Amino acid sequence: MAPRTTARADRRTQERTKSERWQTALTAIGPNKILIRGYPVDEMMGRLSFADAVYLLLMGELPTPAIGRMLNAILVSSLDHGVTPPSTLAARNVATSGAPLKDSVAAGVLAFGPHHGGDIESCMRFLDRGLAITREGRSIQEAAAALADECVEDGIVPPGFGHRFHTRDPRAARLFQMALELELEGEHVRLLRALEHALEGRRDKMDRPLPVNVDGAIAAISADLGFAYDLGNAVFLISRLPGLIAHAHEERTRQAPMRQIDPKDHVYDGSPERRLPQGRK
Amino acid sequence: MAPRTTARADRRTQERTKSERWQTALTAIGPNKILIRGYPVDEMMGRLSFADAVYLLLMGELPTPAIGRMLNAILVSSLDHGVTPPSTLAARNVATSGAPLKDSVAAGVLAFGPHHGGDIESCMRFLDRGLAITREGRSIQEAAAALADECVEDGIVPPGFGHRFHTRDPRAARLFQMALELELEGEHVRLLRALEHALEGRRDKMDRPLPVNVDGAIAAISADLGFAYDLGNAVFLISRLPGLIAHAHEERTRQAPMRQIDPKDHVYDGSPERRLPQGRK
Amino acid sequence: MAPRTTARADRRTQERTKSERWQTALTAIGPNKILIRGYPVDEMMGRLSFADAVYLLLMGELPTPAIGRMLNAILVSSLDHGVTPPSTLAARNVATSGAPLKDSVAAGVLAFGPHHGGDIESCMRFLDRGLAITREGRSIQEAAAALADECVEDGIVPPGFGHRFHTRDPRAARLFQMALELELEGEHVRLLRALEHALEGRRDKMDRPLPVNVDGAIAAISADLGFAYDLGNAVFLISRLPGLIAHAHEERTRQAPMRQIDPKDHVYDGSPERRLPQGRK
Amino acid sequence: MAPRTTARADRRTQERTKSERWQTALTAIGPNKILIRGYPVDEMMGRLSFADAVYLLLMGELPTPAIGRMLNAILVSSLDHGVTPPSTLAARNVATSGAPLKDSVAAGVLAFGPHHGGDIESCMRFLDRGLAITREGRSIQEAAAALADECVEDGIVPPGFGHRFHTRDPRAARLFQMALELELEGEHVRLLRALEHALEGRRDKMDRPLPVNVDGAIAAISADLGFAYDLGNAVFLISRLPGLIAHAHEERTRQAPMRQIDPKDHVYDGSPERRLPQGRK
Repeated sequence: MAPRTTARADRRTQERTKSERWQTALTAIGPNKILIRGYPVDEMMGRLSFADAVYLLLMGELPTPAIGRMLNAILVSSLDHGVTPPSTLAARNVATSGAPLKDSVAAGVLAFGPHHGGDIESCMRFLDRGLAITREGRSIQEAAAALADECVEDGIVPPGFGHRFHTRDPRAARLFQMALELELEGEHVRLLRALEHALEGRRDKMDRPLPVNVDGAIAAISADLGFAYDLGNAVFLISRLPGLIAHAHEERTRQAPMRQIDPKDHVYDGSPERRLPQGRK
Repeated sequence: MAPRTTARADRRTQERTKSERWQTALTAIGPNKILIRGYPVDEMMGRLSFADAVYLLLMGELPTPAIGRMLNAILVSSLDHGVTPPSTLAARNVATSGAPLKDSVAAGVLAFGPHHGGDIESCMRFLDRGLAITREGRSIQEAAAALADECVEDGIVPPGFGHRFHTRDPRAARLFQMALELELEGEHVRLLRALEHALEGRRDKMDRPLPVNVDGAIAAISADLGFAYDLGNAVFLISRLPGLIAHAHEERTRQAPMRQIDPKDHVYDGSPERRLPQGRK
Repeated sequence: MAPRTTARADRRTQERTKSERWQTALTAIGPNKILIRGYPVDEMMGRLSFADAVYLLLMGELPTPAIGRMLNAILVSSLDHGVTPPSTLAARNVATSGAPLKDSVAAGVLAFGPHHGGDIESCMRFLDRGLAITREGRSIQEAAAALADECVEDGIVPPGFGHRFHTRDPRAARLFQMALELELEGEHVRLLRALEHALEGRRDKMDRPLPVNVDGAIAAISADLGFAYDLGNAVFLISRLPGLIAHAHEERTRQAPMRQIDPKDHVYDGSPERRLPQGRK
Repeated sequence: MAPRTTARADRRTQERTKSERWQTALTAIGPNKILIRGYPVDEMMGRLSFADAVYLLLMGELPTPAIGRMLNAILVSSLDHGVTPPSTLAARNVATSGAPLKDSVAAGVLAFGPHHGGDIESCMRFLDRGLAITREGRSIQEAAAALADECVEDGIVPPGFGHRFHTRDPRAARLFQMALELELEGEHVRLLRALEHALEGRRDKMDRPLPVNVDGAIAAISADLGFAYDLGNAVFLISRLPGLIAHAHEERTRQAPMRQIDPKDHVYDGSPERRLPQGRK
């Protein structure tokens, strides 16, 4: 007989209030007053960056300046990845039908499935499973080795590792560097990096190298910052939304309607590579 | 015979490239390299705020520091507005069915219809219609008076004015104050304010006062910054996305599934009103 | 009991109740009882076809047998159109991300924009504009000539005419044949056919032939049946939904995840052409 | 250490072709020719009911007349359930924002989460788990008893049982009656009914009675007909789509925009209860 997990049983794993009353702790609205987590929104405007305000709304308290900088960097990291992600293609296929921009965005959001963005949540859970091993008295290196052996044995690509295009994801490297500099590195980041090292050591047993990708880095840092699993994916969603908007807008303004969109057949005609001005922060 | 505008004719109003080739100017992807509008994304991380990066992606060039601050404030302004907006209720009704968080978000985005967020685009177009009058040699005050007379005569609430809850929208006031201080006020803002003044002068001919709301302020400032009409709505979309996420997450974690969601029946149990710490920028 | 507004009247005016009260005339739910437009749903099951029941729900009364047959044929006509429509590609791009099947379907629905399915509503409005000419005492042929001249002069493709692939849409031909046989042809169908004839007569002044397509046929027949404008599009939506489902399901079960979907690069490996068995109705 | 199933591992459970080539077996498009599963669509129109055509598209072959009647009844069964389902409320909340009808429909589809419609797939899997017991040589009654004991012991409501409103779901009863009459009852239906009987026998150990609901009946019959798990949910989706459309249309035409939608505060003003005309087979 198969394991007895049913959908109904799964539902139980979410903790919920017993109360039937609808309680909300996010935003209080009064006449001419909007309090987000207790702070007047007009007072927040001009004093908090958008990333700071997002942290406040999702987590309930103001971020430290270091966390604010980290979250800005995370949100910048996944802003866009060109025309080939399925979410971008879903958004452009909706745009070519002449639908409103928000419809393109909604379709793009729906394409953030388990294989695309969803890896953040999977990786957060995977790392917590590894950290459970350390709670039993083993080191992070030992936990990483156990996870790596398991992946090699089962032929599994762990969530947060590998990339379709990149052999070394520059966004992951930068996020880890910032986490270190801002003294925000915690056990999830340490385990992820130990796991990357352990996988490198088993390179001969794997089809291809499996470097940490940006999803893995966001997952580990978000977990260290205390984000809930599904908010890890939400961070990616906030980050990529402007990318979906930019592609939908470009499709609407530069291409003929009802065209056949082949992701391999495009030409980049934008700015050549350039550097940020020195004075820029 | 009715006017001959057909859907097909409307489509023509969008300019499009003649080329059949797919050209994109947003993001170039190479091995281990991601260039957004020409800048390496890993160089942007830590040096640009998320709002700066959004401006770069949508507009093609880096914002000035003043524009960056303005955009941060705009994005903060509409972060959330409690449980009653239709978008929030759509998101929560999806969440109560046990659907993934991203599905709630997509449903919320779909509720940003013409009456909800869509006012930004309508207001941008409305202001440009007023400014067309000034191109004919009349003053901004005269254009505002003409628009106000038109609204009063037709019994129309102009887009960007009036609010279900607020008689004076604190977000609009703060946005105008910042636009003034940052020297970003342009003719759209001036016309909008002149129009508000003109409507006040016709108060006896209207059912209710029509103060400028946050949509109007975002519309005027976005237009002054040079955003395309549909990107005005997109700015609202980026701003409110975290609100949709926060409500969907709260619904999933605090409420019983499959409940009947009555927007009038909720209790706020979050932080009492508080002030930002002095040191906070 | 409120006056029984007909769908046709709704279409023309879209009047709204002044009442703040929420009134609904669709379905009444009681303990162990579900009444759709007054009929117990369990009594409908086995006695009404799905198409009959759809008509009842949308229009308020049972269809005649002829209308039921016509609606079944309309719903079959647009069931699927292969892999190239933007809606199908949006659905498949969502499916390749591993998202739930319903998310693929929702994304596909969003791609039914003005250029894709939306032509039905545009065509219904276009035909009503032509019929307004006949109300002024001119014949259907004269109205068709006026519309055709207008299209030729403005270089406009009228909604419901022309097709990316087909020079003679077999679905339109069959729908017209059935409307004739079932004695359901009305003035919208007659005007549409007169317009097709008028356009043929101006062939030398147009880039390409513009035969009636399936959208045009659905629009004219739906209008003759009294459907409101947006319900014309809804009929297409109901018809194509199984197509979206079938493609999403096929993508999930036959293709590797996170693939790059190029609409021009596919192979048909299904059943060869075959005929329905003789006995089949 | 927790069980080692990861999201990546789960992905493996779907069988996929090894081929990188995109193969499709649904619809072949040629000039002026549309073949669905090999049959010309214009030949299908007028000879197949919509339900027949849906079966053909999803399953690959024509249904027998009995299966066609059964599927028509299944599709009618869940056509609408009034204003209170979350999907209906999501659709109406989108409609009140002034968004296009298809946006309301997409939002409604997104609310078909695990607790709403999703039960069909869960129930199909649950029944297959029970049937696995019979493969080991035990009777359907013994399998039902084992499942019932498990549910009682774990305090679990099995998928397909219980209803928010109904103590005896009239749609389930009618579906079972038709399956019997049409000689389509198979082992899934027999197990479901045995399980209902077994649960009744344990009534004293449960909070409330758990009669089979319409989701359970659809699940069992769909499974007996050979539908894949996710196509079970898809059948519900096709069935309810017209309900979403009808509610979105009614919201747009009868209610003021931007209203607060309280599911408990509505008045039914439609047709009183009535019977189908005798002649109506």
